[in-house]
Amino acid sequence: MSIVRHKSNKFLSAVVEANGMVYVAGTTPDTLPASVKAQTAEVLGKIDALLALAGSDKSKIVSATIWVTDIRFRDEMNEAWIAWADPANLPARACISAQLNNPLMSVEIAVIAVK
Amino acid sequence: MSIVRHKSNKFLSAVVEANGMVYVAGTTPDTLPASVKAQTAEVLGKIDALLALAGSDKSKIVSATIWVTDIRFRDEMNEAWIAWADPANLPARACISAQLNNPLMSVEIAVIAVK
Amino acid sequence: MSIVRHKSNKFLSAVVEANGMVYVAGTTPDTLPASVKAQTAEVLGKIDALLALAGSDKSKIVSATIWVTDIRFRDEMNEAWIAWADPANLPARACISAQLNNPLMSVEIAVIAVK
Repeated sequence: MSIVRHKSNKFLSAVVEANGMVYVAGTTPDTLPASVKAQTAEVLGKIDALLALAGSDKSKIVSATIWVTDIRFRDEMNEAWIAWADPANLPARACISAQLNNPLMSVEIAVIAVK
Repeated sequence: MSIVRHKSNKFLSAVVEANGMVYVAGTTPDTLPASVKAQTAEVLGKIDALLALAGSDKSKIVSATIWVTDIRFRDEMNEAWIAWADPANLPARACISAQLNNPLMSVEIAVIAVK
Repeated sequence: MSIVRHKSNKFLSAVVEANGMVYVAGTTPDTLPASVKAQTAEVLGKIDALLALAGSDKSKIVSATIWVTDIRFRDEMNEAWIAWADPANLPARACISAQLNNPLMSVEIAVIAVK
């Protein structure tokens, strides 16, 4: 049993490796305010970097959970999602609404990948 | 490392197999409008079919996340859930509220199963 | 393939072991009404007990999903979280809002751990 944790702050680790899988925390944008599309693109870029820390990449994502603060943002989120996702290796996904930590944030994404 | 993806569209795969586990996407009803109970029954039937594509079945589900658009729908959702679930093999479960993609939808369910 | 389920009721199992991982259901407080901090502390104590049933503990949590009924409760939830969490072994985490089953409840937490 070996668990490897990366980019821990006082609350959480941004990415955790265990048993051949990689768990990426709910990831939010830093550049605010910004459009839903720009926020999504930033979050997905951060997820690329977090997966790389754990020796994985977007082609190995098995599951993604996407929270938007208003479900009507889904189409604009999807524009950035489609521009980023590997079309030959799309994960299982759920996109639902929730309030996020900062009222300027519109999107948060968590993923599970194979290492 | 082998990842198998089934029923991919341009956004996601409906079910993904990896490392002995099966990840089913957030699954929503197609027949709308319909009662919460009817929507839940349809979603659970779709999940049966998706698990079967990956060589799994409902007795092997380890975790289920259920989103309802109003938490007061939980009891009616549960009627269909109990009629469907394997009472000897119940998963860990969370049932919370969220907005869903189509305002006529009342329920969305994602599961993780053993292959 | 061996799946072990603990503390099942008619809807769900509170914790499920499979393939070296442990899935803890969305866990809510029993003592209500109570402050967000007290509710969180109670939930985290229940999660300790559930992980122990499966031969795991909080140092092995890889992922946590925290739902609060109002995102403004996050800071108070975090007070109990920090008092409880193992600072050397912090999980990937998402904290978002949702309605919960009982209007007196303010927090629900689900986790995935290594066994």
